[in-house]
Amino acid sequence: MTSRTLHLNAFLMGVGHHEAAWRHPRVDPARALDAAHYVELGRIAERGRLDSVFFADGLAVGPHVHRNTQAVFEPITLLTAIAAATTHVGLIATASTSYNEPYTLARAFASLDRISNGRAGWNIVTSGSDAEAANFGLDRVPAHAARYGRATEFLDVALALWDSWEPDAILQDASSGVFADPAKVHRADHVGQHFRVAGPLNVPASPQGRPVLVQAGSSESGKAFAAQYAEAVFTAQRTLAEGQAFYADLKGRLAGYGRRPEDLAVLPGIVPFIAPTTAQARALEQEFTDLISPDYALRQLSGMLGVDLTDHPLDAPLPPVPPIDAIEGNKSRYQLVRDLAEGESLTVRELIARLGGGRGHRTFAGTPVEVADEIQRWFEQGAADGFNVMPPYLPGGLEVFVETVVPILQDRGLFRREYDGTTLREHLGLRPHVNRYAVEEAERAAG
Amino acid sequence: MTSRTLHLNAFLMGVGHHEAAWRHPRVDPARALDAAHYVELGRIAERGRLDSVFFADGLAVGPHVHRNTQAVFEPITLLTAIAAATTHVGLIATASTSYNEPYTLARAFASLDRISNGRAGWNIVTSGSDAEAANFGLDRVPAHAARYGRATEFLDVALALWDSWEPDAILQDASSGVFADPAKVHRADHVGQHFRVAGPLNVPASPQGRPVLVQAGSSESGKAFAAQYAEAVFTAQRTLAEGQAFYADLKGRLAGYGRRPEDLAVLPGIVPFIAPTTAQARALEQEFTDLISPDYALRQLSGMLGVDLTDHPLDAPLPPVPPIDAIEGNKSRYQLVRDLAEGESLTVRELIARLGGGRGHRTFAGTPVEVADEIQRWFEQGAADGFNVMPPYLPGGLEVFVETVVPILQDRGLFRREYDGTTLREHLGLRPHVNRYAVEEAERAAG
Ligand SMILES: Cc1cc2nc3c(=O)[nH]c(=O)nc-3n(C[C@H](O)[C@H](O)[C@H](O)COP(=O)(O)O)c2cc1C
Ligand SMILES: Cc1cc2nc3c(=O)[nH]c(=O)nc-3n(C[C@H](O)[C@H](O)[C@H](O)COP(=O)(O)O)c2cc1C
Repeated sequence: MTSRTLHLNAFLMGVGHHEAAWRHPRVDPARALDAAHYVELGRIAERGRLDSVFFADGLAVGPHVHRNTQAVFEPITLLTAIAAATTHVGLIATASTSYNEPYTLARAFASLDRISNGRAGWNIVTSGSDAEAANFGLDRVPAHAARYGRATEFLDVALALWDSWEPDAILQDASSGVFADPAKVHRADHVGQHFRVAGPLNVPASPQGRPVLVQAGSSESGKAFAAQYAEAVFTAQRTLAEGQAFYADLKGRLAGYGRRPEDLAVLPGIVPFIAPTTAQARALEQEFTDLISPDYALRQLSGMLGVDLTDHPLDAPLPPVPPIDAIEGNKSRYQLVRDLAEGESLTVRELIARLGGGRGHRTFAGTPVEVADEIQRWFEQGAADGFNVMPPYLPGGLEVFVETVVPILQDRGLFRREYDGTTLREHLGLRPHVNRYAVEEAERAAG
Repeated sequence: MTSRTLHLNAFLMGVGHHEAAWRHPRVDPARALDAAHYVELGRIAERGRLDSVFFADGLAVGPHVHRNTQAVFEPITLLTAIAAATTHVGLIATASTSYNEPYTLARAFASLDRISNGRAGWNIVTSGSDAEAANFGLDRVPAHAARYGRATEFLDVALALWDSWEPDAILQDASSGVFADPAKVHRADHVGQHFRVAGPLNVPASPQGRPVLVQAGSSESGKAFAAQYAEAVFTAQRTLAEGQAFYADLKGRLAGYGRRPEDLAVLPGIVPFIAPTTAQARALEQEFTDLISPDYALRQLSGMLGVDLTDHPLDAPLPPVPPIDAIEGNKSRYQLVRDLAEGESLTVRELIARLGGGRGHRTFAGTPVEVADEIQRWFEQGAADGFNVMPPYLPGGLEVFVETVVPILQDRGLFRREYDGTTLREHLGLRPHVNRYAVEEAERAAG
């Protein structure tokens, strides 16, 4: 194995990422509602020695609820069920800094992290939709900058809480009756603009110290936030050149926060349609495209672009869309979709087909070798540290990836054959987490 | 089996309810920190055909953190891990209405409820300590009445959200592309004093419709709240007469909310020390009493009574305590402890010994037959619909209950030999939940 190894995360969504997956004969749509389905996906990912599985999340029903399967499980609970059925695979849950309290959320993640023996990760999101805001007493989504402001303070509190218990705080000396060393259990005493939190957290540190921090915002504020905190970044990049530019940009920002390039893994998304021949893979993709419901897709697209397209003719180009400054939701996805439509002069129908697989993520149809080649190319040419694998249909699309693409990557020495650690932090090749108070003590002891 | 059957819930706490359990040789204190321990307890409870297992919770570390094992897992995640390893036993998690948002919490419970196929219950608490308040931006705990006011509105929102999806809303018709019937997915559109929540919830209804509601407040507001919402009530009652009075009081309030006596199960706590002879059981209890650390116990007692006892002499009676109106935390526990100390003229040392087993809950040392007799007596004499079984040490104290007391109750026809349903609602003998919109439709259809 080369010293730099690939990281693979399975992004699991219902019965697949393709928006029409649930209508395809390879899929049993009822499984989207069944926790056992997701537990099985966790087992498949672990069989493939993947770094982690990941669930996205939103705090409202999706648009046009009656036309597509909905995410029905809250990710932290669902991953806890997967934790109980697996031993190694990392478990990344999405949760919002805009509509949670840091004490409660830090605790839920710490609990998952201990239950899984150090496999938890948190995909930090700020929740960009009005529908979510309306479930939390607001008329519309708070401004982008305000959300990132709260997110930053939220992280500072969560990090302090996760450090409240030094790793060697617990003594459990039954004879003397001393459970913990009080000098190693710390309050947070955070007083800030959004939060006042005393601490300590009521969960001691997990085997990996604290959950791995993951992020997926690609706007300026998103990238700054990622450079400061994230240990893995999910991103939608359509071409190698764009991927390289994003990768260089993000890695270049790390030094500004005293971090090294290898402290953060960049994981672009890929939606792989895999078949024994290229033609078969393309035909498979086409089958899914043909099942798209235009009215559902238009609703999705309207949300991404901030303009009502539901009555727009399918065979016309996009109408004028608002300027990026008017977008308070997902700025980077807006930009990607707008650039795609304009750059390739697509009609709305064509655009919908291109977005159907992964809502803007790169779709790739090919043989197992072609998929492996593409992954290797991005990995070796400075566009990726690995991939966020987004199977278009599930479980089949994950199974075929694990059974046909992973062995090729293993044979090429790019990917592990066995886990060499047990925590997500170890899988990602990150440095061990060092508790802030242990550092202080070491410094005091040194002089 | 008689038509009225006993309900048994296992209240699981660390390595046991006795505050010195972790120091006793029957106990391995490290297990308190290990999720596998709790999963094993869930399996033992299921082997005993118990209705449910239950975790208490608080949103801060306990007082005197270094002198006792701490609860280290968040209950909803921990119960999800247990859900994955069991098939029937009910799963009751404590969560606070004071420091959560209804959308988020309703969703987490709905997720646990679906993952467990309809076994979730929620022990609704309002969080009575200053330590908790300080983790959520407050200087001290909000007033008792204000907490119950928020709790009431919280419940109204949660109940509306759990009804958002009618049970038959999901069609999943892949050929037409229709996932759900939009007429059967409802918004909540709640606008109240504490919350504005649009809905619908993004989790469809579980097999039991919604989680079972459990409550454990015994003050006037607590009992009114329980009478309105709760389907099971945990309570600390020290004598049969007190138990009968509480039982009659609570059941008598139900009609005021249009409910029947059997819509709510009253479950007093019992901390059983079980051994082959009465003398051995008493000796076992004494072993635990002898391991109490007075300084830890005084800290606990100070919290319950709202007065600093940490320097008070152990062999003196209690000093004067504040009047009940000054207690903003747990009023009913305050009253129980004060009445116990005054009624029996106990010294502080004696009081601590009496409280060590279950913090005020009834402790009972006896043979399996004596424990079964006591349970039957309360059950048949109008003091209980079952018990909240609080093993003084774990797992041993639960094992001996399941292996020696449960068979006696089964032989007497008081307790199930096999589960006859799969949901917690069924175990508790509650009526099926009827979705509010289904009622409306039925009424419209009827004319
Ligand atoms: C792979 C991927 C997964 C994402 N998952 C979620 C999610 O689960 N929930 C969410 O609210 N946003 C999610 N996002 C959106 C981002 O977190 C972020 O909010 C979005 O990119 C807007 O941020 P920006 O304005 O900084 O671009 C995801 C983005 C990517 C690329
Ligand atoms: C068996 C039992 C378990 C309880 N569990 C919790 C708990 O986990 N968390 C909590 O904050 N309060 C808990 N309580 C306290 C009650 O929920 C309630 O807050 C307390 O009795 C004060 O309410 P009151 O003022 O109405 O008496 C418990 C009480 C009992 C009897």
